Amino acid sequence: MFEEIRKQAYEANMLLSKYGVAPFTWGNASACDREQWVFAIKPSGVPYDELTPEKMVIVDFNGNKVEGEYSPSSDTPTHALLFRAFPSIGGVVHTHSVNAVAFAQAGLPIPALGTTHADFCYGEVPCARALTEEEVNSAYEENTGRVIVEHFRANGLDAGAIPAVLVRSHGPFCWGKDAKTAAYNAAVLEIVAEMALKTLRLNNEISAIPSYLLDKHYLRKHGANAYYGQREHHD
Amino acid sequence: MFEEIRKQAYEANMLLSKYGVAPFTWGNASACDREQWVFAIKPSGVPYDELTPEKMVIVDFNGNKVEGEYSPSSDTPTHALLFRAFPSIGGVVHTHSVNAVAFAQAGLPIPALGTTHADFCYGEVPCARALTEEEVNSAYEENTGRVIVEHFRANGLDAGAIPAVLVRSHGPFCWGKDAKTAAYNAAVLEIVAEMALKTLRLNNEISAIPSYLLDKHYLRKHGANAYYGQREHHD
Amino acid sequence: MFEEIRKQAYEANMLLSKYGVAPFTWGNASACDREQWVFAIKPSGVPYDELTPEKMVIVDFNGNKVEGEYSPSSDTPTHALLFRAFPSIGGVVHTHSVNAVAFAQAGLPIPALGTTHADFCYGEVPCARALTEEEVNSAYEENTGRVIVEHFRANGLDAGAIPAVLVRSHGPFCWGKDAKTAAYNAAVLEIVAEMALKTLRLNNEISAIPSYLLDKHYLRKHGANAYYGQREHHD
Amino acid sequence: MFEEIRKQAYEANMLLSKYGVAPFTWGNASACDREQWVFAIKPSGVPYDELTPEKMVIVDFNGNKVEGEYSPSSDTPTHALLFRAFPSIGGVVHTHSVNAVAFAQAGLPIPALGTTHADFCYGEVPCARALTEEEVNSAYEENTGRVIVEHFRANGLDAGAIPAVLVRSHGPFCWGKDAKTAAYNAAVLEIVAEMALKTLRLNNEISAIPSYLLDKHYLRKHGANAYYGQREHHD
Repeated sequence: MFEEIRKQAYEANMLLSKYGVAPFTWGNASACDREQWVFAIKPSGVPYDELTPEKMVIVDFNGNKVEGEYSPSSDTPTHALLFRAFPSIGGVVHTHSVNAVAFAQAGLPIPALGTTHADFCYGEVPCARALTEEEVNSAYEENTGRVIVEHFRANGLDAGAIPAVLVRSHGPFCWGKDAKTAAYNAAVLEIVAEMALKTLRLNNEISAIPSYLLDKHYLRKHGANAYYGQREHHD
Repeated sequence: MFEEIRKQAYEANMLLSKYGVAPFTWGNASACDREQWVFAIKPSGVPYDELTPEKMVIVDFNGNKVEGEYSPSSDTPTHALLFRAFPSIGGVVHTHSVNAVAFAQAGLPIPALGTTHADFCYGEVPCARALTEEEVNSAYEENTGRVIVEHFRANGLDAGAIPAVLVRSHGPFCWGKDAKTAAYNAAVLEIVAEMALKTLRLNNEISAIPSYLLDKHYLRKHGANAYYGQREHHD
Repeated sequence: MFEEIRKQAYEANMLLSKYGVAPFTWGNASACDREQWVFAIKPSGVPYDELTPEKMVIVDFNGNKVEGEYSPSSDTPTHALLFRAFPSIGGVVHTHSVNAVAFAQAGLPIPALGTTHADFCYGEVPCARALTEEEVNSAYEENTGRVIVEHFRANGLDAGAIPAVLVRSHGPFCWGKDAKTAAYNAAVLEIVAEMALKTLRLNNEISAIPSYLLDKHYLRKHGANAYYGQREHHD
Repeated sequence: MFEEIRKQAYEANMLLSKYGVAPFTWGNASACDREQWVFAIKPSGVPYDELTPEKMVIVDFNGNKVEGEYSPSSDTPTHALLFRAFPSIGGVVHTHSVNAVAFAQAGLPIPALGTTHADFCYGEVPCARALTEEEVNSAYEENTGRVIVEHFRANGLDAGAIPAVLVRSHGPFCWGKDAKTAAYNAAVLEIVAEMALKTLRLNNEISAIPSYLLDKHYLRKHGANAYYGQREHHD
């Protein structure tokens, strides 16, 4: 019944491991089915080489387990909240990739310093505010999602164009139209974070690229007028 | 007779090599049997690809060889002292992983800058004081252990919650409830050290995360109220 | 008919992937046939492991597609312009390698700080000026090539001796007597960029090596009096 | 006739490639036979995967080719001079490993900042002075060796205890009792250089470890009273 999203979530979790962005068991990916109002997510603490599609846990958009032998990832309430808040997304991933975590721990957004960044994200990767003591102590994982959504709403950001966020002192959450794209975005984020860290080391007064260059690159790859890739031919 | 701890020590040594934290022969892992008051440890200077469980050397908690064809690791007296001083630990490892060594050489602890750190260690990874000339010149390896224990006692640190230490100008010692966990902690320490080094480069005024976030993450994974991982189901 | 340049372009694209300088699909290589006034180039957005020589697209030196089932790389107009402007080159590559991109994003050339640099490039790797808003908004990829050529002409640089350039806020373009050499130069550039970044971190007042050392190393490997490698014997 | 040194030189060259310290063809290793006053060295510019013991070139201690189908490494005169000047060494290697090159390009020695360093080198890894224009323009490679030897003699350094040097703006030369040890020292140097670079970034006022700690570690592994490794049992 949930075979398709189990498969998608499984494959996205394996991509996190393949891309090197989720050491040990530190990462999780989910894939949602909006019609059924559920998503499939990695079981908590299970090593990547023991995962199978069948071990993915099915959870509804309120974070309640629907089906599965295992306990879902402890970050499940964050995924649930993001699926509720961002209607255009089909997959969410969380990683502890080193360079993205460095920005999160430093409490800094990743500025759009070049075209590699602009090809995947339409502006800086934001860094959400720290959770308060109260937010940490009750419903921590759900509040993590709330703080992300609060940041996007307060700043008028479009989750369809900004596919990643840094949770302060923690690390990145990424998303996309499906789980595979979310995993890809997590890998791109890590490369872009490494580039930004090294750029700032060479020139710490550098600022973000101008909006026309950001537009050019983002829109070259995304949206109705994109001309990157194969538009008509697919094999 | 010592088959079980030989096997555990062997596997933990191989993990150090697999995790990339012990280049060449620079690392050693041990596993203890508290009832028999002995531990198994890597033979000195033998490459990882020549190790077997049978080559592990059995040593008592005073550091005297009990059984084995080979000479034990030159760091054996440090392991012995840590097993005597910290009753809750079952395995000890020593590595020369690059980022952790950088903090040790800089004479700096690794502050708890984020949740990746808090997931494995309940506070900063301390850096013990330098050994005096006298301590270096007699019983150097045992004194290395003494300085570690001195630091933990003077600062009221719990070796059960702080599974790693940096020896000044040298490198990390890590431990855990068993040898495999000690090796895992050495690998996590290296990742956390790299994250911290990069964080400090982005923002050298950043301070440790607040205690409620440290509590949340450490206790989510460790202790009676942990809810990370699979609590009831194990396959 | 275009079999030879398809094969060269294919092999150079695969080298980019092998050398680790083109993550995902972010890179492209081309090989030209000056007699036929065409070049073969990677199709846009196709993963490296799906490439074949047959999928390479044949384009003329004005950037018009001559033959091929796929759309050519979106950077095709840049390649075309470079082939027109630099008569001695037989291959062009573009990558997003991390350290070279860091210099491009910082808006800095890579100074010739040592002999590794001098062995491949006869002076600093220049960083071209940023494109204006108008240049970005019309014929962006062709203007990217124009800005490169403008920099070489204004500064009297010889594309035969300087086989790489950084495009501001974007990344490197490299070239060579053939596509394979261009790909090799892209890999060398990345190593040289990493060395330069680390050198500047150790000593940010270091300046370029003196011209006699640059001459010695560049001319030891390149030109009529070169004495590196096997001059008479080839197997 | 020169079978043994050809084999040693071949294996040491392959170790450079395996250890990742000699990208492409940028490195060379030699093994000498002091009785015959010759050494075997890598042919110039031949990729590591095409090397065989038979392709090693036999050269005498004045740098004149004695036997071999290929031209020897362009750095042959440097090797020859080091074999003449340092009677205790049996192998020499030259690499372009990134972190060691960064120190050479920055014109800085690598200070002995910790025990990993002290385990392999009895004091800082020196950085020789830059060659003059005249020294570069005539007999460059031999003068490279002369500047190394000049530094060791002027500073009273023992090549038996300091197995590596940085040539200013160029990179490291390493040596050892045989070619295999020289290659090992090149790999250790690169790790130690990376540790030092990261240490200085964390604390740029750190100074070298005290002499009693240097003595302890160096002499624990080297010389008559060494107690690291297996003294009596070898398998």
